[in-house]
Amino acid sequence: MKTLVIGGCGFIGSHVVDTLLAKGDEVRVLDRRPEMFRAPLPSVEYVMCDLADTAQIYEALAGVDAVVHLASTTVPATSNLDPAADITGNLVAMVRLLEVMRSTEVRKMVYLSSGGTVYGVPQTDPVREDHPLNPISSYGIVKVAIENYLFMEHKLHGLQYVALRASNPYGPRQGHTGIQGLIGTHLWRLARKEQIEVWGDGSVVRDFIHVGDLAELCHRALVAGGSGSFNAGSGEGASVAEVVEKICKTVGGDVQPIYKPGRNFDVPRVVLDVTRAQTELGWQKTVSIDEGIAGTWAWVQEQVG
Amino acid sequence: MKTLVIGGCGFIGSHVVDTLLAKGDEVRVLDRRPEMFRAPLPSVEYVMCDLADTAQIYEALAGVDAVVHLASTTVPATSNLDPAADITGNLVAMVRLLEVMRSTEVRKMVYLSSGGTVYGVPQTDPVREDHPLNPISSYGIVKVAIENYLFMEHKLHGLQYVALRASNPYGPRQGHTGIQGLIGTHLWRLARKEQIEVWGDGSVVRDFIHVGDLAELCHRALVAGGSGSFNAGSGEGASVAEVVEKICKTVGGDVQPIYKPGRNFDVPRVVLDVTRAQTELGWQKTVSIDEGIAGTWAWVQEQVG
Repeated sequence: MKTLVIGGCGFIGSHVVDTLLAKGDEVRVLDRRPEMFRAPLPSVEYVMCDLADTAQIYEALAGVDAVVHLASTTVPATSNLDPAADITGNLVAMVRLLEVMRSTEVRKMVYLSSGGTVYGVPQTDPVREDHPLNPISSYGIVKVAIENYLFMEHKLHGLQYVALRASNPYGPRQGHTGIQGLIGTHLWRLARKEQIEVWGDGSVVRDFIHVGDLAELCHRALVAGGSGSFNAGSGEGASVAEVVEKICKTVGGDVQPIYKPGRNFDVPRVVLDVTRAQTELGWQKTVSIDEGIAGTWAWVQEQVG
Repeated sequence: MKTLVIGGCGFIGSHVVDTLLAKGDEVRVLDRRPEMFRAPLPSVEYVMCDLADTAQIYEALAGVDAVVHLASTTVPATSNLDPAADITGNLVAMVRLLEVMRSTEVRKMVYLSSGGTVYGVPQTDPVREDHPLNPISSYGIVKVAIENYLFMEHKLHGLQYVALRASNPYGPRQGHTGIQGLIGTHLWRLARKEQIEVWGDGSVVRDFIHVGDLAELCHRALVAGGSGSFNAGSGEGASVAEVVEKICKTVGGDVQPIYKPGRNFDVPRVVLDVTRAQTELGWQKTVSIDEGIAGTWAWVQEQVG
């Protein structure tokens, strides 16, 4: 099988590429920039272009059996600053991609949606896939709209798709811009002897999934037969304060986070029910949060040292 | 109260304007074109421009207490031909409008959503507002995304809004393009001695609401205190075949419709549960479908004669 991984040079994408190669698949990557932490892999074909460049997308799809689409021009923390750009960069780009895939007869897609934003403020704990979708960020609204276009393409034109509603992925090769990825951001700052900052009082609860487990789930989704939306998390909640404590314990020394005001788009608690992925895709997580933080810390230290 | 009616020169808009004027409200209309069937009303201010013209939108909002937004650049039957244009023309325009409304402190909006498309293929009959949203047309997907942006604007920035999920409105001043509005289209064709065409076998069931009742519901939504999405239909289903029969009876003579193949985005049956509008907005429909067809036929005959 040959798979085009859109966003394959990003944090999650680089792990998906590794997993697909390990399974013996052929991989082509489409991204705007090369990987940040590794040299290009010799066994991968790279197409460096923007998703808006339709002519290049046609070329990139030649000979491909399936697409894994992980790219996003926005993150939850910034999407509300310019919703029009969020819509144009992600939603319009997706409907154009679906049109090109239809005309080139590529009929399989795994798409990275967002378990942390599509539900809005959850009314249940954990959250199942049939929970109402009441997003309160542009990021989440656009993800829901993209899932709806995938569903429509499935119903009207036979696309087979899996939308993975990922919770909070972390692990090696996560960037350190400070706007996304609590664990990566904190470990990087601590490795550089910088102070760490927490939005809110630390009571916010999230579901952290190791990027290796998420990449394995992408692979399972790719070989699965059905179509639909699946939660992609650890199934367990950890408060920001607990995670910061684990980080401090792993790193050692006296770490005092600076607490900053909470953000109005942060929902208090999201823990995903991942029963559907377990039963229908035969997937299980393999990395505990303690192991995951330790492994990520080892990788960050290598990078800094 | 002064209300800006966006799309106020359209079929539904012209009735909303009439209703608001009858209640003693001041009305400003923003539209791309004047009304098709009436001269401009002396008591209404008209702003002729595109919704994408942000500078004009600022001006149009000056001194306004509320917005009724009825404009759409697409109809369900055509939205799937160019989803990117649908998204740009309607969704991006809406998020820009919300930004301008926030900065000009206009904090009330009634928006015309779509009860016939947001639910997809209904799993219940009639359909309540809490039914899952599984649209299978771009039109419906964009309406859902707009409702989500309204909800977000409500939660984060205090916008008071009502999204009216209208079923199939009909009545005087409905156009006759043939792509939307079964009753209007058929009456116009019959008045001109043309043949009428039906997509599918006539078994498709829809919920037809008289435009006067819908305009009254817009007014109720405007004076209501709460925020949310409300079904806006008659609460009763009628098959296309039944409606064609009623039309033939009203028009008289020997009418033989031409049956054409069904369309893949037409859901088999949508009847809206309108209990929420009745109980929370104190609204009741007043026009039966027989009275409505008779009144519309009288109006069409006036126009043609």
